[in-house]
Order: sequence, then structure tokens, then C-alpha cells
Amino acid sequence: METSSDFLSSVTENLAVVTFDTKTNITYASDLFAQTMGYSKEELLKMQHRDLCFSSFVNSASYTEFWKRLLAGQTFQDQVLRKGKGNKKVYLEANYFPLRDEAHNLTGVCKVCFDKTKSTSTLIKSIGEIGQITNTVHEIAYNTNILAVNTALQAVRSSENSNGFSVVAKEMRKLSKDVDQSSKDIRETVQNILHQLNVIDQDAY
Amino acid sequence: METSSDFLSSVTENLAVVTFDTKTNITYASDLFAQTMGYSKEELLKMQHRDLCFSSFVNSASYTEFWKRLLAGQTFQDQVLRKGKGNKKVYLEANYFPLRDEAHNLTGVCKVCFDKTKSTSTLIKSIGEIGQITNTVHEIAYNTNILAVNTALQAVRSSENSNGFSVVAKEMRKLSKDVDQSSKDIRETVQNILHQLNVIDQDAY
Repeated sequence: METSSDFLSSVTENLAVVTFDTKTNITYASDLFAQTMGYSKEELLKMQHRDLCFSSFVNSASYTEFWKRLLAGQTFQDQVLRKGKGNKKVYLEANYFPLRDEAHNLTGVCKVCFDKTKSTSTLIKSIGEIGQITNTVHEIAYNTNILAVNTALQAVRSSENSNGFSVVAKEMRKLSKDVDQSSKDIRETVQNILHQLNVIDQDAY
Repeated sequence: METSSDFLSSVTENLAVVTFDTKTNITYASDLFAQTMGYSKEELLKMQHRDLCFSSFVNSASYTEFWKRLLAGQTFQDQVLRKGKGNKKVYLEANYFPLRDEAHNLTGVCKVCFDKTKSTSTLIKSIGEIGQITNTVHEIAYNTNILAVNTALQAVRSSENSNGFSVVAKEMRKLSKDVDQSSKDIRETVQNILHQLNVIDQDAY
């Protein structure tokens, strides 16, 4: 491996790194972290972790629990939504881990993260498109059902082809129901995906 | 910030880190990297970068280009598919950056990565479910069209309600076409998402 100092400078030069003390105050920020969040390093050094989170997360029980675990020495890795300068949404793939002194006492928490804002936004847009198309499918199912009802009415009025119309109406209603069920299933899956991406719970601020 | 040595040991202890020389030989692997790939550190030190990739990627022009850029000092960040021990698929959110000596000469490449195998697999499964449901929607559209054709035939045979049947058949065919178009749109979006997640191109080995 490279000498420690060369390696360390490469890491801090090329990765978005931020450290916090046990009071959650920011104690260090790499250039790339500052750039990712849109703040200067000087600004960041006056801030706390909560200043980079949307209020819905900060005010939740999860937030207290999150820090309780970190300060107990636990690690954490996930995609998270954070608040950049001007309330800009920043999606980070983040890894939190404890910093310890030589006596193994916890002195703070380090966060190394990758900026996933662009790719996550594209992904959310694509999934949103599926949601939109699914709405269209739902509308078509609705229209198919109306057509089925009208056909059934015609069947009642009709004499000669009453049976034929009735069969068509019944089949159509079934198909309409099946399409509608599918659109519901897709919607549910879309919600699951958004939930997996952690873009729902903390979305508001 | 913490003292350099404390910080460095925290980084290598808690992150999956691997370094390569300019010949792409592995020169260092952290415990977590070894664990993520399923190899021992000793095994890894006898391996090259290509041994951790599926052959479809290694044999592609992208692979040559990828290393050409890294050795020119460029950084790279993306979700990648890698090959763990026993050909296990490992999804990594990876960040590659150059290592340099004091004279700023490039001595190798460092890769810091987070294991995304579990969450990516879940995501791919969910997206696959959307694909499945969409197949169902496509089949329903097909059945609706058959029903429309049969209704049109009945309209020809019928005397009294010929007009009513024709209108129903025409409407049904339109709805069937609309549903089918929607299922095609969803499928296309699903393919786009899989492409964004980098799970298509390098999928085979």
C-alpha cells in the first residue's frame, strides 16, 4: 500500500468526507463534500449535522435514534436525502462510522459519501413516468367498464342479439377489472421502489 | 480533524478499500473489501482488477477505455457489477481515484466502495415485478382485441343490432390498442431504469 500520508491526502482530495464531534458539530469537511452540499468549508464548520437534513427527518424519532446508534459506535450505510444550500435536495450514498482515539474512546463520527443526486433524480423521473402511464391504464380500464355497462344496457333493449351482447358485456367487464387490478399492482410496486430509494419518508421539509 | 493515523485506521477499518498498481494488480485490500468480495486478503493480493469483473465487461472496449482513463488520472464514480468468489454478483457503488507520490506521479488507483448488492437485488426484483405485471396487461390487451374481432363478426352476422355491435367492436379495439401502447411504454421505461442501474450491459459472463 502507499505511504499513509499520500493515501490520506488522496482520500480527502477525492472523496466527500465530513466528520462530526459527539455533539454532532461539523469538525472537518473535504473540498468535495463542501462542493456537493453547496456550502463553503468555513460555513460548514459553523454547522451541525441537523443543518444538512430536512426538518421532517430532524424532528422525527428516527433522527434521535440515528444519532444514538452512531454515538454507540454503530456504522450506518444507505442512500440518504440531505439538504444542501438553498434547501437543494442532495441524494448521498453515505457511510457513517465511528472515529476513536488511541484508547479506543469514541471521539466523533466520520461520514464518507458519494453524490447520487443526478442518477437518483433520473431514476425517480423514470419511476414517475411508470406511475403516469399506469394512470392512463387505469383510465382505459374505467372507459372499458363504461363501454361494458352500455353494452349490457343495449343487450336489455335488444331482442335478437340480447345473448350475444350480454356475453360481450360480461367479458369486457372482466377484462376491465383485470387491467385495473394490474394498474393497482404496478402502482403498489412503484411505491415500494420509491420507499426502497428512501425518497418518500423524508421528502417534505 | 482527528489525527491522521487515527483517521486513516478508521477509514480502512470501516470502508471497503482496494488499491491497484499501474498494471492493475491488487496492492492492498481492506478487511471489508475482502469480506464483500468473498475472498481472503491473501487471495486478493495475487489477483488483478479483471479477476473481479465478469468476462463480458473485461472483453469489451469499455474495459480498455476504463483503465486508460484511470491511468490518465481521471476519477470514476458509479454503481458497478463485480464478480465475487464463486462468480457471485456483487453490486458496488464505487469511487475510483488516482494515487500519487510526493512528486505527483501516478503510482496506482484507489477504489473505495459500498456494498449495494442487497438493495440493488431488491430493486431489480421490484422492477422485474413491474415487467411481469406489464406482460399481464399486454395479454389482457390481446384478449380484448380478440373479443373485439369476435364482436365485429357478430355484427356482420346480426341484422337488427349490427350497428350497435360495430360501434362496440370499434371502441373495444381502440381501448385494446391504448392498453397495449401503455404496456409497451412501461416496458421501455423499465428497460431504461435497468440500464441506469447498470444491470443490463454487464449482466452476462
